[in-house]
Formats: sequence, C-alpha cells, structure tokens
Amino acid sequence: MNYQIPEIDLKALFLGHKGENVDIFKEVLLKMVDEHVGWRQNYQPQDLPVITPFDKSSKSFQDTTDHMRSVFNELSSKLRSESLPWHTAGRFWGHMNSETLMPAIIAYSTAMLWNGNNVAYESSPGTSQMEEEVGHQLCKMMSYKAGESWGHICADGSIANFEGLWYARNMKSLPLAIKEVAPEYVEGKSEWELLNMSTDEILDIMDKLPEKMDEIKAKSARSGRHLTKLGKWLIPQTKHYSWLKAGDILGVGLDAVEAIDVDSTYHMDIEKLEIRIRELAAQNIPILGVVGVVGSTEEGQIDHIHKMVALREKLMKEGIYFYIHVDAAYGGYARAIFLDENDNFIDYDKIDEVYARNNVFKDMKLKDEWLTDDVYNAFKAMSQVESVTIDPHKMGYIPYSAGAIAIKDIRMRDAISYFATYVFEKGADIPALLGAYIMEGSKAGATAAAVWTAHKVLPLNITGYGKLMGASIEGAFRFYNFLKNKKFHVNGKVITAYPLTRPDFNMVDYVFNEEGNTDLEKMNKLNHDFFDYSSYVKGDLYSNEFFTSHTDFAVPDYGNSPLEYVQSLGFTKGEWDRVEKVTILRACALSPYAHDPEVFEDYAAKIEKAMQENLEKVYTYENVMQDNLDKILTYQMN
Amino acid sequence: MNYQIPEIDLKALFLGHKGENVDIFKEVLLKMVDEHVGWRQNYQPQDLPVITPFDKSSKSFQDTTDHMRSVFNELSSKLRSESLPWHTAGRFWGHMNSETLMPAIIAYSTAMLWNGNNVAYESSPGTSQMEEEVGHQLCKMMSYKAGESWGHICADGSIANFEGLWYARNMKSLPLAIKEVAPEYVEGKSEWELLNMSTDEILDIMDKLPEKMDEIKAKSARSGRHLTKLGKWLIPQTKHYSWLKAGDILGVGLDAVEAIDVDSTYHMDIEKLEIRIRELAAQNIPILGVVGVVGSTEEGQIDHIHKMVALREKLMKEGIYFYIHVDAAYGGYARAIFLDENDNFIDYDKIDEVYARNNVFKDMKLKDEWLTDDVYNAFKAMSQVESVTIDPHKMGYIPYSAGAIAIKDIRMRDAISYFATYVFEKGADIPALLGAYIMEGSKAGATAAAVWTAHKVLPLNITGYGKLMGASIEGAFRFYNFLKNKKFHVNGKVITAYPLTRPDFNMVDYVFNEEGNTDLEKMNKLNHDFFDYSSYVKGDLYSNEFFTSHTDFAVPDYGNSPLEYVQSLGFTKGEWDRVEKVTILRACALSPYAHDPEVFEDYAAKIEKAMQENLEKVYTYENVMQDNLDKILTYQMN
Repeated sequence: MNYQIPEIDLKALFLGHKGENVDIFKEVLLKMVDEHVGWRQNYQPQDLPVITPFDKSSKSFQDTTDHMRSVFNELSSKLRSESLPWHTAGRFWGHMNSETLMPAIIAYSTAMLWNGNNVAYESSPGTSQMEEEVGHQLCKMMSYKAGESWGHICADGSIANFEGLWYARNMKSLPLAIKEVAPEYVEGKSEWELLNMSTDEILDIMDKLPEKMDEIKAKSARSGRHLTKLGKWLIPQTKHYSWLKAGDILGVGLDAVEAIDVDSTYHMDIEKLEIRIRELAAQNIPILGVVGVVGSTEEGQIDHIHKMVALREKLMKEGIYFYIHVDAAYGGYARAIFLDENDNFIDYDKIDEVYARNNVFKDMKLKDEWLTDDVYNAFKAMSQVESVTIDPHKMGYIPYSAGAIAIKDIRMRDAISYFATYVFEKGADIPALLGAYIMEGSKAGATAAAVWTAHKVLPLNITGYGKLMGASIEGAFRFYNFLKNKKFHVNGKVITAYPLTRPDFNMVDYVFNEEGNTDLEKMNKLNHDFFDYSSYVKGDLYSNEFFTSHTDFAVPDYGNSPLEYVQSLGFTKGEWDRVEKVTILRACALSPYAHDPEVFEDYAAKIEKAMQENLEKVYTYENVMQDNLDKILTYQMN
Repeated sequence: MNYQIPEIDLKALFLGHKGENVDIFKEVLLKMVDEHVGWRQNYQPQDLPVITPFDKSSKSFQDTTDHMRSVFNELSSKLRSESLPWHTAGRFWGHMNSETLMPAIIAYSTAMLWNGNNVAYESSPGTSQMEEEVGHQLCKMMSYKAGESWGHICADGSIANFEGLWYARNMKSLPLAIKEVAPEYVEGKSEWELLNMSTDEILDIMDKLPEKMDEIKAKSARSGRHLTKLGKWLIPQTKHYSWLKAGDILGVGLDAVEAIDVDSTYHMDIEKLEIRIRELAAQNIPILGVVGVVGSTEEGQIDHIHKMVALREKLMKEGIYFYIHVDAAYGGYARAIFLDENDNFIDYDKIDEVYARNNVFKDMKLKDEWLTDDVYNAFKAMSQVESVTIDPHKMGYIPYSAGAIAIKDIRMRDAISYFATYVFEKGADIPALLGAYIMEGSKAGATAAAVWTAHKVLPLNITGYGKLMGASIEGAFRFYNFLKNKKFHVNGKVITAYPLTRPDFNMVDYVFNEEGNTDLEKMNKLNHDFFDYSSYVKGDLYSNEFFTSHTDFAVPDYGNSPLEYVQSLGFTKGEWDRVEKVTILRACALSPYAHDPEVFEDYAAKIEKAMQENLEKVYTYENVMQDNLDKILTYQMN
C-alpha cells in the first residue's frame, strides 16, 4: 500500500523516555499478538488444542511455568541493573545508543512469532517480499536507478562491508578470468588494462556471455587465483578495525589494505589519495578500490565522496580505475534529509523551502551552521558509487541487528552468486534462495518486518526519516554550541570545554582543559578521569546523571591530523610529538527529543551541573590521592 | 543463579499450536514491559516526561499514531496471508520451521527494549555477560574443558562456518610465520612439517612468544600470504553451498575445496577420506582441514566424527595433521540428550536408566530404533575437534537469527583477533570489544538474552534440552514408521511411500512410487507434483492440510550414493544412470507435540487423508492434462 503520509510527529513514534507512550505500545503489541493467535486458531479449526486445561493444571506444568517466571525475574533484574540509561531525553551524550522506533520494536516482536527465515522464499514468503522492498527503498534513498539496483539486509555493517569488498574483489578479477575463457572479448588488453576496466565495462561484457558465466566465475578470485594481483584497498587513516578484518577475511590480505591520511577535519585527504594512487600506478600496482566513509565512527564526519568520484573520472582518462565502496553504516540514512516529498535530491537553493514546508529544524540558523557545500555534495555523489553500507540499526533507529548493503548495478550480484540456474519467485525479481546471493545464510524475517514497518511509517525522504535526521542534527548542534567555551570552576581552577570540529552530522567530540595547562598528558588524564565518572566505569550505571564516551586519537591511527586542534588549545608541536595522543570525549546526539529548544534548555542546566559535579569528583579524587597518599597508606597499615 | 530444575513439562514452554498458553505469554511479556518502563521512569525521577498529555492530544500526534496503526494492519495482513502454518502440532512435515520457545521469544522482545549492542561490553554490560555465559554453556555441551574453551553467538551458521575456516586458515599458516619471525622455535622443520603441525603444538609455541605474537600474526595468512600453500579443505560430497561460499570468501578459494563421497546412508565415507588424504600427501598437498557434518541439511545424518578423529590420530603418527571443524548447525543441540543431570556424557549402558528417570521417550522401542553405536560415538567424539558450529535458531528452538561457534582451545582466539592490547572487562574473561575476536561487529544483545533465558529454563542436558531433543526424535520415528510401506489407492493405482533411510536424528526423507513403475523420471515427477500440492507452490498457504518440503539428490552433488535406495525401489542401475537424479520429499520433525502417541495418532489419520487428497489432485490434474490436452487446445483456439 502507498500511504498518504500525514505531518509526522516524532513524539508519536517512540516509547518515550519515561514510557509516555506505553499505552500505544501495549495496544498495538497486543493487537498483533492476538491477531497471530487468531491465525493459529483458525488454521484447520477442527484441530483441537494439544495443551489441554488438564495439562495446564498439572504439577509439572505449574512447576515449569514458575521456573520460567523465576528465570524472567533474574533476566529483568540483570537488564535493569546492567544497562545504560540511554533512553533519557537529555542526559546521555555518549555511545550510539538511544531510543529506537516503537513501530520497529513491535514489528520485530510480533513478526518473530511467525519466525520466518529469509534465507529462502519458501520459508518466508511475506517477510522475503518485505526484504526485497526494503532493498529497493534503500537503493532509492541512494538515488540508484529503480530496476537496475538492488539491496538487502545484513547482520550488521561489518558484514555489509565484507560483502562490499567481496563484490570489489570478484569484479576486479573477472577480466583476468574472461581473458582465459573468452579472450576475444578483451582482445589486445594488457594485464594492467584488464585490472583497470570499469565496473560498467566488465558487466557489459558479462552480459554478452551468459552461457560462459559459470566458467568465467570459476576462474575469478573465488577460485583462489589472482588474489595477489588485484592491488590495494585504500581506506581512511582512521581505519576502522572492521576494514582490517575485511582484508584478512576476504583473503585480500592486510598487506593490501592501505590507509590514506585524513585532514585536520577528519576527512580522507583527496589530494593525498591522488598522489598515492599515482605512486602505486607508477609501480604497476592497481587499486582494488577506495572506501569513503559517510559518518566516521569517532567523529561522524562525511568523506568528500564527490571529490573521490571526480578523481576517479579524471584518472579513468589516464587508464586507472578503482571501485568505490561507501561505508555509510552510520550516516546512510542521513541521505533522507536531502530527498524531497517525491524522493528527488533537493536542489541546494530549494532546501530551506522544503525544510520549512516539512517543519524540519526548529531553528534554521542551526541548519545553516550544519550544512556546508561539501556535506551536500558528498551525499549527492553517493549515487555514483558501486556499493554502500547502510545500517538500519544505527541512524535508522531500528533495534539491533540490522545492517544493509545496496549496490548500484544489480548485475554485480552475479559476481558473487552461487548456483548455475538462477531461480526467481513468482515471475518477480525475488531470489528463491537469497542465501545464494549474499554472505549470510539463515536470517530473521522479523528484521525485514521491523525495517519494512519503520520505512512505511517514516518514508526515506524529508517527510519521514529526513525529519528524524534533522532532529538529531539539530540536537547535536545545540549540544555543540552549549559546549563551546563552556567554563567550569573547580577547586579554584578554570576548566573549559572545547569542541573538536564543526560536526558534519550529529556527533560532537570535545575535550576539557584546565586554564593555562600546557601538559598534554595532564589534559588527557583529566578527560579520561571525567569519562570514568560519566560512564559505567566508576559509580553506578543507573544513578549517573550524565553519560559520555571517549576515544583516543593517537599517531598510529591519526597521524598528525589532530595537531591543528591540539595547537589551538595552546599545546606546542613539541608537546604533541612527545605525547602523540589526545583523549577525546565523544557524544552521538541521537535523542529524538533534544532538538527541541525547551527540552534542550531544561537538560542543559542539568548536565552543566552534572559535568560540574563529575569534574569536582575528578579533582577531589586527584587531590586526595596526591596530597594524602602517604597518609592513607599509613592509616591502612595501622 | 543456579536453579533447582523441576520436572520440565515441554507443553508449558511453547505458545501452543492454538495459542493455548497465550495467557502466560501475555502475563510474562507485559510484566517485562512494565518493568522496563518502570526502569525508564525511575532513572532520575525528577526529569519530567517530554511527551506531554497536550502533545498526545495534538492532531499531528493522532494522525501519526493512526498512520502507524494502518501500517500495522498491513503488516498483520501480510504476515497472516503469506506465512506457513508450521505451528500446527501435526500437519507440518517440511522445512526447518516450528514453534520456538516462548521464553526465548519473550526474552528477545523485552531485551530489545534495552537494545544492547554486544559488540562492546561498554554498551551492553548485562547482555555481554549473558553472551559469555552462553558461550561457556555451549562449550560445556560439547564437553570442552571449562576455562580452556570459548564460544559466542553468531548471526547464523554460515557465519559460524566462515569463522571456523578463518580459524583453520590462520592457524595453519602460523608455523610459516613463526619460521620467519622466530625460526628457533620450529628449527629443523621442513615446510611439509610446518604445514602438518597440530593445533596444540602451534598454540604451545605461541604461548612462549607473547611479545612476538603481533609480528607473527602479521606474517600469517591474514597478511594475504601463504594462502595457496595451505592445502585442501575437505567437505562431504553433499556440499552445502555455505561451504562453497566459505572457500570463496576466505580467500582459500573454491579450487581448494574438495568433496569426499558420502556412503549410501549419507555419511562422509571415511575410507575414501583416508584414501584421498594419502593421495594428496603423496603429492605434497597438505590438508587444511576436514568438515564433519552433524545433522546434514537434507537428511539430518550424523557424520562419523569418531572415525574422523581416529583417522587423524592414525595419520598424525605419519606426520599428517588436519584441523577438524564440525558443522553441527543443525544437530549441535542434540548432544544435550547424551549429558546426564551433571552434564557428564552418559555411559552407553546407563542411557535407558537416565532416560527413564527423566521421562525422555514415551516409547523406549523408538529410542532403540534410533540410537546406534555410530550416532552415540559420533556425538561423544565432538569433544575432540577444534571448533563446532551450533545454531540456537535450529534445534535450540530460538527465533532467528542465532547461530554460534564454540572452540575447544580459547588460545585459538588470538589467531584471528585484532589489537595488540588485549583488554578484558572486570578482571574477568569477557572481551571489552567482542568485535575484535569475531567476524561480526554490532550484534543484538537481545539475541544473547533470548538464548541465555532459554538455556536457564532448559539446561543443556537430559533434564532440559535433552528432553526436547528426545521429543523431536520420537516424533520423527513415529512419522518414519507411519510412512513405511504406507499405501494409497488413487485412480486404480497403488502408490506406496518409501522412507529413504533410518534417520540418525529427526529428519525423515521419503518418496512415493506407483506400483510397478520403473520409470525414474515418472517417479520424480510424481513426488515433485505432490510437493507442489503440499506446499506454498500450488493452492493456498493457509488452507493446505499437509505440508512437506522437497529436494533433489542428483549426481553432481551426491554421486551414486542414492543408487542403493533407487534400486531398492525397483529401478535399474541403467535407469539411474539415465536420469541421474531422484526427487525426495523431506520432513524435519520439529513439532514439540507429535512425539505424544495420542497426538500423533490423531494427526496420522488426518495427514493420511490429506496425502490421499493431494495424490488425487496430482493424478486428476495429470489425467486432465494428458487426456484432454488436444481438446483444451482446440477449445482455446475456437
């Protein structure tokens, strides 16, 4: 069904930080449970219940249910005592945790009663169709062409990234296999040229060779051949470990995974990328592919995909081609904020008008602060890359686990698929055995139901997810502005907060420093100690009044990219060279409520107070430890 | 908590095929929801709700909830109209679908409200501990030594299998890397000897080189080196496509994946395995590893793991070593039926006594029919292999997606792990970043909660899961005996059912044949047509009265292993050689109710009638088509 989408009120779509919508939650949940039970009862209604009233009155039945109830008491206690209160509207500024969409939770819970397995259409006709639909929705969100593109749900972003490298690896090797099986199709090409054919060119040749496809694939990288010839897989310097695992697992090898420096605002440096590609080309080493990151794990930054694409176009004229995979596990859904009511990418000069019409951003000044040309153009250019990882369980506000991958050209699917005979269901485009086209095998139909339901409720454009993305970005910028030069007075010292950089999206990194401090190690310790008091590390999970997370930017992963920031805080280059690390506090601004100025202001006062208290704990503990260490030891010994 | 386990009544642990336990389901579900909401409310109770009564009365809020309700109407309709009625107590004898455990469903649904991400302890302290506990429980079920073994939950069995090959691949390459980095530890060993070191020997050397571990790993297969030297990965002939994908994805290559014939009862032929290993050794080709299958996808058969282990011991004396991975995705939980109340593997001559004490098997004659020495010994020997895939979402009766892997020696974890500094939480053995030790990244804490809860309610021994396994096996043997020589009279013809082979577990394969028929193609068509009428293919999903699934045993995957069976049905070897394929009907007997003789007898009559009707449909349709084809065509043309 295509729904007439009403003006979406985000407050109606979450359980609420105090469970405000528990009435709606239970209503819909129980309705779905009852409808499931009705379905069970009315399948062959002449069949009687096998669990009889007498069974239910028996001692073993009662004992078993009481045993089960006891286990649930333990489960409930463990969950309540050992979980983080990320649900709070304004106190959790840490990890990627937050409320998830109520419709997704209910859909998952109740689709689970049917327990479809989307590995095969036969076992899950309903949810297999939903997964296919979700794949096409994600493609549309990337502005990939309908009918020519494809996508599916994965267990998580790492698996989606592995699959991206799997596509790239097998695609890159196909020309070498064609050369063996049908050399007339690549006549006159040198090995260098074979390894620099574009994805389009390769797929067009494969189209002409359907009867030789299996033979060609059998001689591609999947055979174990050519792996050492495929060249380098280039990733940003901040290299997320999932890309190291990818290189290891896919047999490309860590030796083939190379990092390209990021600049001082944590984007892959495209000039350095070009230099490195040319250096490698001069040594006859091809480029297997380049990974652009949309929403980096530690900073939420958006790589300049448009510049990557432009570089590829330039180098293609010189006979150099590389596959581009965009790791938008975190930021993928943010493309919805650039799509209008008809899913068209909004012209830059129409953005304000479209946002105003859809009530996106309560304060358009914050939008202006956020939206740069580069951010706009990077999202726009995502339509031109071969594949993209998008995690519904991150900015899709879907419960774990739900990752996804979308590919621009559905024909690439054959580069990794199994079985010679391609069986599709019901004359449509839905694989009978999805497991033959993806890494995973068995997979929950419930995940597809959850994502499908969320996408139906919140379309992947400005009327739905775009609005939620706007709320998240606006909340992030409120927090960012709140932090800027915020001062705390603790034990006679002045402590100031310094955000790292203007966020491209909704992640705010920052540090505290003591006025006049020029010792970088001391600052790192201050921030680490502050994190300890503002997290699960020290003190109680549940009574903490402010939560944050932390990370280290150190030379092995970041090179000197943090230097500019560190210098802006008054540290010398010598100090940076000595310490080679800066400890950063990190906030993913995911709360769907904190964009509201009233809500934010209320919490701003509360978290300012909580920060003050946590800083005081740091300093008190410090003083006690430093001034009284001997005394304490003496006491203890008596 | 350690619970005093009462006499478990399986009927108390499922929703019921007519929703008989929906009262208990709702009671526990709502209690858990309420306790979650209480947790939200009481975190900083001074914080006010952000969704106010006025918000909830607004038009946009009402419109949004009504929109959501409309989407749920569509979801409910789709699920009810496009799902299979596997919940029936006795009419579904097809795919691996059935009721799942009510405690697992409720635990998943409610843990999802907290939405922990088990990739990192920091984001999910409670459910990370549960996953660690589940891993140890699975190890204990394999009789791996406590404290020395490890396991974790995976997205599914394919991922677990990939991880098994990842372990094997990296382990196999370590000696080559040690030779480069610390040659004194493998002094005097030839390359052949390096590639035939046992897992224990390699791990003992690695233990002595902690400071060189990273350097050694950097030169292992993860670097991309050595991949072509590691030898063959041997799998059973019936090669599940997940093993082809594994070879492709892990860079070992399909050329290195070799199939070993299965015998006429569908077990890997260990004699042929030995012959092939010796042939390869004679050519200086090492064996990367051997896969034994416990619960084959199409037959549920149990490979003779004890013979594989014995062969390895024999060959080790000749300097040949291979890694063994057991793919017990399907059958892993069945090991619980061999563990007594104290989790000890039951002596063969004590089995009847232990089963009687725990009310396992209503009819011990069926147990006798099932339990052979080979099945017993195969399960026993699982404790001696390096790694094993076990899927909670198959015989664990846990909702999708929940696979798992267990490794015998926790030290193997370092062969695939990332990061030089190994950080563990709370002084315990729980990784701070689980994602650094496994393939996946983000993963649902809810899955861990579901499996943990199920394992707490049903211990992994004869008092819990063992009993459920017994019910499933008993149900399978009732169906097997029901089918044996069952005759149907249709249109003057006699149709007889013939089971394929005595099941090792709970899967029953069978065919129908027309008396006197010697045309194998005709029999294949009969069974395929019967499947069409007994599945989603023809007619309605919901009104079908009997469900089955089907598969083809064809020469490319099965060689001549089906020949003996085909000949027993009266077909000649010539006929087999002509057709090279037999279409098989396949029943996974998962119903937790059908083991009960009263329930089974009730349904036996019903499904006999439904089979009769579906056979009649086949023959009626056949007759119409064959007798009247010309007439129909003539009608259509007029």
